[in-house]
Amino acid sequence: MNNQILFITQNFRYLTLIFGSLILAFLISLLLAPQLIKVLHKYKIGKQLRDKASTGEEAVIFKELHSKKAGTPTMGGIIIWGTTLLIVLLSSLSSWLNFTEHSLFSRRETLLPIFSLIVTAILGAIDDYMNLKGHGKSKGIDIKPKFLLLTLFATLGSLWFYFKLGYNSIHIPLLGDLSIGFWYIPLFIFIITATANAVNITDGLDGLAGGLLTMCFFAFAAIAYFKGLFILSAFCTVIAGSIIGFLWFNIMPAKFYMGDTGAISLGATLGVIAMMTDSIIILPIIGFVFVIETISVIIQITSKKLRNGKKVFLIAPLHHHFEKLGWNEATVVMRFWIIGGFTVILGILLSVL
Amino acid sequence: MNNQILFITQNFRYLTLIFGSLILAFLISLLLAPQLIKVLHKYKIGKQLRDKASTGEEAVIFKELHSKKAGTPTMGGIIIWGTTLLIVLLSSLSSWLNFTEHSLFSRRETLLPIFSLIVTAILGAIDDYMNLKGHGKSKGIDIKPKFLLLTLFATLGSLWFYFKLGYNSIHIPLLGDLSIGFWYIPLFIFIITATANAVNITDGLDGLAGGLLTMCFFAFAAIAYFKGLFILSAFCTVIAGSIIGFLWFNIMPAKFYMGDTGAISLGATLGVIAMMTDSIIILPIIGFVFVIETISVIIQITSKKLRNGKKVFLIAPLHHHFEKLGWNEATVVMRFWIIGGFTVILGILLSVL
Repeated sequence: MNNQILFITQNFRYLTLIFGSLILAFLISLLLAPQLIKVLHKYKIGKQLRDKASTGEEAVIFKELHSKKAGTPTMGGIIIWGTTLLIVLLSSLSSWLNFTEHSLFSRRETLLPIFSLIVTAILGAIDDYMNLKGHGKSKGIDIKPKFLLLTLFATLGSLWFYFKLGYNSIHIPLLGDLSIGFWYIPLFIFIITATANAVNITDGLDGLAGGLLTMCFFAFAAIAYFKGLFILSAFCTVIAGSIIGFLWFNIMPAKFYMGDTGAISLGATLGVIAMMTDSIIILPIIGFVFVIETISVIIQITSKKLRNGKKVFLIAPLHHHFEKLGWNEATVVMRFWIIGGFTVILGILLSVL
Repeated sequence: MNNQILFITQNFRYLTLIFGSLILAFLISLLLAPQLIKVLHKYKIGKQLRDKASTGEEAVIFKELHSKKAGTPTMGGIIIWGTTLLIVLLSSLSSWLNFTEHSLFSRRETLLPIFSLIVTAILGAIDDYMNLKGHGKSKGIDIKPKFLLLTLFATLGSLWFYFKLGYNSIHIPLLGDLSIGFWYIPLFIFIITATANAVNITDGLDGLAGGLLTMCFFAFAAIAYFKGLFILSAFCTVIAGSIIGFLWFNIMPAKFYMGDTGAISLGATLGVIAMMTDSIIILPIIGFVFVIETISVIIQITSKKLRNGKKVFLIAPLHHHFEKLGWNEATVVMRFWIIGGFTVILGILLSVL
């Protein structure tokens, strides 16, 4: 037990960095969010309701549930990655001027997640912007180009991890490392694109994706910490803190939404961090709600195709199904948070075993 | 770092106990809650709205905000302490029959919290029952007898801790132990009564107290674990799991409330566990929201007395003030949860330093 205490106190200066950054991120994000909301309102960056369901048909039920949300600003994800990048910049500057010991920019630990965050945030922002211009017709980057761009990015990442960094095995809790050789590349691509899409699918109720993402990034802050990746751990708490500031105004009734620039970038970055911390088996446990939301969509589409349009859920993704069953929006969100809290704790536990 | 991993894996069997009990408690509580709700409905154990504000005057604003809640069953706390005691009993039986290695009943670690939970649950249940019989006139055990009984119980506890167990100092994070001698007794009494009352005051919006208590008990599960009190840690997760099962039906729109038998017993037990883990300085950080809620009531009463009835808040406690300001009930609850999540993490961190 004393070893435990020793380990923690020895790393006291890292803990200050980790928690200091968390609180700073939360405060900055909380203060800037209302300004961003004003700007988004001014430029009419409002949510366009989908005409088509994710399963292809007219989104009648969806519109019935969510007509009140049309016009609420979107692209709120800017506040999340904006705050995160601002803090990384400030900490680099402060470390360069020798004010502080550590920078949140570390070639070994945070270069790749920062790079992913920037690239996918831009990709998401373009998609959001085109959604706005589309005005309900062909919305966003057409589903295929958007998916292709994300896949392209994931492919570049996978090659970097495999050839440059030499990753080629996955860690199985309680069992050990499993070398998978070249298969690491398609696996990596799948993880990044799947995580980004899963978060995007889940982002459909006020506060839902934001609350779950907060827990996920806290979980990876703990996992990175236990692996001795202290800077990456601090980077995770910075993202978590930034999301909490966003969440403050995104919970019911939402003042703005994160949009693709939030969901896709945070999802992809979460995937990259999972790969860096060798937590591929843990990821679907920590992100359990994201996984079942995605599966609900896959089941719904498959069922419609194979069973002449017969549906399994009243409406997919799952959160809308429960809404249609009569649950309040807040009830669905809170219950999904509770489940997320459970699986996050389980995931952290499994990762240390 | 390896020491850390070693510490955790060495105690793997305790982790199974801790997490196994958590999940079991959640499932039992989740399954039994709807049955309890039916029973409470049948016997008309419904909530009576207060006529008087906690500050003494007619509760006009309160009624305006909460008339829709009259008739919703109360005394839901039964499911929380009932599930907890059931699991303690089952685990003792299973250990006695040599099916399992550990029992959740440990003379050294859990005797006192279990005893506190039982006594204060009964005290709270009597109060709830008398509230029902009072039908709006002199409700519950008169404020003074109720407070006296709780103080009497806290006094007995304090004498036990001081004389029998030899506690007489408090731990200050980063500084060390401070011996306070005989002053330990009044301090103990204050902590137990204050915690019980603070939870009771906070328990006024759907899911609010339940969500915060879940986080607090998880925090003390972690603190007890780091102090090597593994059975106490498991006891905390059992309570947390039981609360989550309750919470599932207590979030907006609540199907039942915990009542005094929930709020007072969980508050007092939390106080006892804080004393056992020597976390008196950490407790107000972990229970920060409970503290500010209580302070809001104290400020309101003091202001009214000293300033000829002038109020500071539109209505106390604080959560109703924000409701009156126009926040949704769910918004208040979620934002208070977010603040609670923050202070809980901070508290755990301080406790290991």
